[in-house]
Amino acid sequence: MKRSELFIKTRREAPADEESKNAQLLIRAGFIHKDAAGVYALLPLGLKVVENIKKVIRDEVNNAGGNELLMTSLQRKELWQHTDRWDDKKVDIWFKSRLQSGQEVGLAWSHEEPITDMMREFIASYRDLPAYVYQFQTKLRNELRAKSGIMRAREFIMKDLYSYSRTEEEHQKFYEAMKEIYLRIFDQVGLGDSTFETMAAGGPFTGSSFSHEFQTVTENGEDTIYLDRDRKKAINEEIYTEELAKNSGFDPGRMEKVQASEVGNIFSFGNHKSEQLGLFFSEEDGSQKPVVLGSYGIGVTRLMGVITEHFADEKGLAWPQSVAPFKVYLASVGEEEQVRRAAGNLYDQLTDKGVAVLYDDRDARPGEKFADADLMGIPYRVVVSAKSLEAGGSELKKRTATDIIIVDDNQLAESLTSSLHE
Amino acid sequence: MKRSELFIKTRREAPADEESKNAQLLIRAGFIHKDAAGVYALLPLGLKVVENIKKVIRDEVNNAGGNELLMTSLQRKELWQHTDRWDDKKVDIWFKSRLQSGQEVGLAWSHEEPITDMMREFIASYRDLPAYVYQFQTKLRNELRAKSGIMRAREFIMKDLYSYSRTEEEHQKFYEAMKEIYLRIFDQVGLGDSTFETMAAGGPFTGSSFSHEFQTVTENGEDTIYLDRDRKKAINEEIYTEELAKNSGFDPGRMEKVQASEVGNIFSFGNHKSEQLGLFFSEEDGSQKPVVLGSYGIGVTRLMGVITEHFADEKGLAWPQSVAPFKVYLASVGEEEQVRRAAGNLYDQLTDKGVAVLYDDRDARPGEKFADADLMGIPYRVVVSAKSLEAGGSELKKRTATDIIIVDDNQLAESLTSSLHE
Repeated sequence: MKRSELFIKTRREAPADEESKNAQLLIRAGFIHKDAAGVYALLPLGLKVVENIKKVIRDEVNNAGGNELLMTSLQRKELWQHTDRWDDKKVDIWFKSRLQSGQEVGLAWSHEEPITDMMREFIASYRDLPAYVYQFQTKLRNELRAKSGIMRAREFIMKDLYSYSRTEEEHQKFYEAMKEIYLRIFDQVGLGDSTFETMAAGGPFTGSSFSHEFQTVTENGEDTIYLDRDRKKAINEEIYTEELAKNSGFDPGRMEKVQASEVGNIFSFGNHKSEQLGLFFSEEDGSQKPVVLGSYGIGVTRLMGVITEHFADEKGLAWPQSVAPFKVYLASVGEEEQVRRAAGNLYDQLTDKGVAVLYDDRDARPGEKFADADLMGIPYRVVVSAKSLEAGGSELKKRTATDIIIVDDNQLAESLTSSLHE
Repeated sequence: MKRSELFIKTRREAPADEESKNAQLLIRAGFIHKDAAGVYALLPLGLKVVENIKKVIRDEVNNAGGNELLMTSLQRKELWQHTDRWDDKKVDIWFKSRLQSGQEVGLAWSHEEPITDMMREFIASYRDLPAYVYQFQTKLRNELRAKSGIMRAREFIMKDLYSYSRTEEEHQKFYEAMKEIYLRIFDQVGLGDSTFETMAAGGPFTGSSFSHEFQTVTENGEDTIYLDRDRKKAINEEIYTEELAKNSGFDPGRMEKVQASEVGNIFSFGNHKSEQLGLFFSEEDGSQKPVVLGSYGIGVTRLMGVITEHFADEKGLAWPQSVAPFKVYLASVGEEEQVRRAAGNLYDQLTDKGVAVLYDDRDARPGEKFADADLMGIPYRVVVSAKSLEAGGSELKKRTATDIIIVDDNQLAESLTSSLHE
């Protein structure tokens, strides 16, 4: 895409009222727009990152047998009353509204209830199990304070997956498989080395003692975890005791207390919610049993925020290739016709080969183009100038490295396409 | 995909409380789930249709220079007060809620205001114009009655595009180009022959006398239009007068009064909203001018409803290939190992060639499989049985035709891949 055709404006300063590092950077780089506290629109570059993250998740979850669907935002009061999650004293982040008839409705902050209720039409017999359904949906949460940018927004995109199993054993098998899948997802978006399975509280509505979070170690992380780097596992401080650590196979003496950001969580609901909502199935022997439910979340925009903060440096963003909005930032330097033509040709060539190139075709100072390439965090920068053409091609530089090499067009195409899936 | 891995259940009867033809059919065929009046979830097959429609629109709009982004659902009261569209007496379809601080917020039913407000950060000079941005977004509209299924739901997906132009002339050029693009979009989703550009009222908030709708002629259409089939243009009954027809180049004597369903609309806002919201730019001579605004909507789920009703017959749905969730419904008939193996091989072959196949691998009666293939409206049905194998291959039948032909695997692959883009 040509920069002149991209809807974007980069800025030197973030808005004065923005406190979070992720939103400050993403606003400056033109990825998001702040509409209100905790309410951010996704600009074209931000939407591309979100779609890339969704693709990583979608591929993994489809492979595991997930069926993608899309539930609704509007929620029926009666349904959530059944599970005692309607009252603001029980769940304090509801946005609620009213139909013209005066009837109260909620705006979804989660979807266990409506999906489980719907399942009563789809699950009647053991033959209908297991079932795995998921969605990417905009959730609304009425957070009292919203100061963490897109990491805890009032409106955000979430991947939520729900598993419906015949037995606790079948459930556990899928639950453990999802742990592996989550680690693969976080690995693919670049956080593999710093993201750890973490024991956490079961939550008041799950009927289980424990849940599992995935925590990415970050300086500014809002959570504290006790981490065993060798086992690659951790316990959230909220539930940590030496006894629990020992009982869970840890050596408390080797555990490290670090700050981390949650990027995903998985819950076992057991029979709890199925019993509340009347989701039963007929076993082979004709008996009626409640379905075993699990739920598996990844905050997609939150994950984008964690990736932002994890990789950013003093020059700006630095996206891993798997989620970067473009792979290459191509800049022409100088007004010579020969340079323009060479850069234009290179753009066409790379685009034809399937490389996602953002071509800065503006009449702007070289320093401005380079600063934008760094601020936007595009993995590779390619510069065409009279000097580079004289030296035999263009300058290639990785966003995260300092060395610049001169490559001819074929070498460039080769190195960029061979690392397509890096 | 294998039917056994698809999350679906087809039904003989639609829910008793569902009055609309589109939702009745889509629920029976397993494409959507009714959560409440006017509130429908998209099941996997329904989501595929929506994504296919979005792809048709996205490709056309990107070609026209559109930049995709994603605005938020939460809306600031002050912003809509500026344009006098906050008060329920002025706009009677708002869903409203409150932040924990007590501050009122709205849920978006349209996005002219927040996008135009945002544009003040992006448009300062004539050099920043024109700008074309669009999104696919879930809109919430508090309809008093919701009896038209997904054609007028309380929650629905919309494509909304906004154009920001330097002059009225530049605006008109894009506005006319969008008319062509809209006709191409409706043509690609199968409604080309019955969809017509229709003059309609400008709307109280646009500042223009007229807008343009795209109306699809359908028996049960909720609108009445005066149509000139030769000119392929129409006038909405709401504004029709013989004088207007004559002044607009029609011959009133040749116009036909027909029922139709609106599938898209485009509006000129002129300077109206820009002046209200303070969106000005510096001209070359330094003068400050308001930006000329246009807005262009297509209700994506509504369009799915119109396509449903337009093509359905007594057996069920019948999707045009461009939007069908799968291209082929493959069914094996009979329990013979040879039949199973042949059907499985065919499934692998076609899938490898990029044909979207739904393989009904269930132990079900042939009649049940055929009825489901018809009900779901998959464009091609392929049946493998002992009889078909004896005759040299499999049976191929179009959903909309009655003749069945025997083809060998190569012929089948060829005819299905050659018509990939039909």
